[in-house]
Amino acid sequence: MLELHLGTEGARIAETQSPELTRFVVEHGFADMYTNDALDQRARKIATLASLITSASLPQLEWHTRGALESGLLNKAEIEQLVIQMTIYIGYPAAYNAMGVVKKVFEELEA
Amino acid sequence: MLELHLGTEGARIAETQSPELTRFVVEHGFADMYTNDALDQRARKIATLASLITSASLPQLEWHTRGALESGLLNKAEIEQLVIQMTIYIGYPAAYNAMGVVKKVFEELEA
Amino acid sequence: MLELHLGTEGARIAETQSPELTRFVVEHGFADMYTNDALDQRARKIATLASLITSASLPQLEWHTRGALESGLLNKAEIEQLVIQMTIYIGYPAAYNAMGVVKKVFEELEA
Amino acid sequence: MLELHLGTEGARIAETQSPELTRFVVEHGFADMYTNDALDQRARKIATLASLITSASLPQLEWHTRGALESGLLNKAEIEQLVIQMTIYIGYPAAYNAMGVVKKVFEELEA
Amino acid sequence: MLELHLGTEGARIAETQSPELTRFVVEHGFADMYTNDALDQRARKIATLASLITSASLPQLEWHTRGALESGLLNKAEIEQLVIQMTIYIGYPAAYNAMGVVKKVFEELEA
Amino acid sequence: MLELHLGTEGARIAETQSPELTRFVVEHGFADMYTNDALDQRARKIATLASLITSASLPQLEWHTRGALESGLLNKAEIEQLVIQMTIYIGYPAAYNAMGVVKKVFEELEA
Repeated sequence: MLELHLGTEGARIAETQSPELTRFVVEHGFADMYTNDALDQRARKIATLASLITSASLPQLEWHTRGALESGLLNKAEIEQLVIQMTIYIGYPAAYNAMGVVKKVFEELEA
Repeated sequence: MLELHLGTEGARIAETQSPELTRFVVEHGFADMYTNDALDQRARKIATLASLITSASLPQLEWHTRGALESGLLNKAEIEQLVIQMTIYIGYPAAYNAMGVVKKVFEELEA
Repeated sequence: MLELHLGTEGARIAETQSPELTRFVVEHGFADMYTNDALDQRARKIATLASLITSASLPQLEWHTRGALESGLLNKAEIEQLVIQMTIYIGYPAAYNAMGVVKKVFEELEA
Repeated sequence: MLELHLGTEGARIAETQSPELTRFVVEHGFADMYTNDALDQRARKIATLASLITSASLPQLEWHTRGALESGLLNKAEIEQLVIQMTIYIGYPAAYNAMGVVKKVFEELEA
Repeated sequence: MLELHLGTEGARIAETQSPELTRFVVEHGFADMYTNDALDQRARKIATLASLITSASLPQLEWHTRGALESGLLNKAEIEQLVIQMTIYIGYPAAYNAMGVVKKVFEELEA
Repeated sequence: MLELHLGTEGARIAETQSPELTRFVVEHGFADMYTNDALDQRARKIATLASLITSASLPQLEWHTRGALESGLLNKAEIEQLVIQMTIYIGYPAAYNAMGVVKKVFEELEA
């Protein structure tokens, strides 16, 4: 399940960086709070990306962008539109920084 | 279009509080950056709510919660799940404060 | 346990505002992540207050200030010093706003 | 000097809310860090307002807006332009909230 | 106009990183919201730097520091004072990080 | 005193990056606001780390983690628990980023 959310690379980094936090986010976060059917997984992925862009959580934005593309929940054009839309709510500097991250992921997946 | 996004009450407050900002957000934000078809309006509303919850923009969260319910883009159970999911990314204090806002809107619309 | 952390009043508000978030924070947060003996409860309360002051989570700062005083983990002079020290890390505006909250709690508990 | 910066009302509130922080901000902040001639007081007031708008320090934005107008360092039209310009850097929600604060000060000073 | 604001290097990076955001910030942000005569360009540059220091938007702080020096709107001593003054409002950690960025720009422009 | 707080490496970086800010933080911050006996130095170090984790001040988190270990005020297990506990208040992304920093310090001190 971790790979579904973070992509294979993100899951690997998360487990290396902190096995304890990874255990908690799997047992608590993804298990109970993310799987409720009241919202479909595509909607949840959009919400997660919007939150990470807003809080400037750039490493996690990278993991979840990979996860979104690998799982097919979102495509590149949709993710780009999401960053552009967020500009209204967070301003240009944070949007540029987020765009830099998602475009780097796009390029790495094409390579 | 402002009412579609912010609800009738939010649109009224926004125009009273700042006609200049409201003109800019309609001409710039909503016109060019929000309407591109690459993302449907339901996806955009989810992203907007997630961003406002994350940045603790509580008055705007209230406007957009009303807008989401009035326009039928999201229902109450979905919005509640969104707040719960955000806890993973922003922690409990910000989630409690957001939940307080959306539940207040739910109650006012029922009254 | 919720009352130990948030004070009787904070526990009541938290449960009213969101029974779902309160269930999660008790089962996940306080159960697994807060009770590990590697840090004593006084140390944890200091860390929690410092975090809430820093993130400007003022309603939760109020709950935890009450909890700290009701449980005897910290006294008023210590909490005041904590706010003053935080000024170095977050600047004066956020420190003033936090001081306003903790002093209001001090007054209400004296009344 | 406190009144020059915060306006008479802001200075009164700051001293009531926390005499300790007020002593520190006068001795440390305003004395050493604010008075260096390398930047004139008008430039410093603009920087302070821009910072408070960006960090959503709304009570302090109110104090410094009063201080800016009472001291004549800035006029209303300039402060309004400042909020509008900040939108580029922080997004619309934070700009609306700041505009609400400065317009409330404008109205109170006219009354 | 982009170069006036961001310096030649910043303008180049911004256009590479996101042509879409750059088009929007030129058409919307700089065109309508930045050029109004009610505030002179020096005042606007001070406000922009103060905002970027406060929000820890370090890549954009680098662009605008270059832009401020290249356009002659501010000199090095003034920018340094600005960072020092911001410490009052945002605390030392964010001020150190901003100082590291502006000093790096100073050194690069001298080289 | 700077070394006690920031570790030898952190003190060196701070002085190099900004002698002015370092003079102010020693004269103002650490002198008057940090040394009051109402809170012991261990408690103050916990509060400082919690604040830096919360505000994502990662370079300063590195300095103070070194300072905490070099001075013996906290051990590695305690610092790790602190990061885990903070997750409740700030969410997982910021906690992962902080954990990456403190574990890097742990490894460097072991090398």
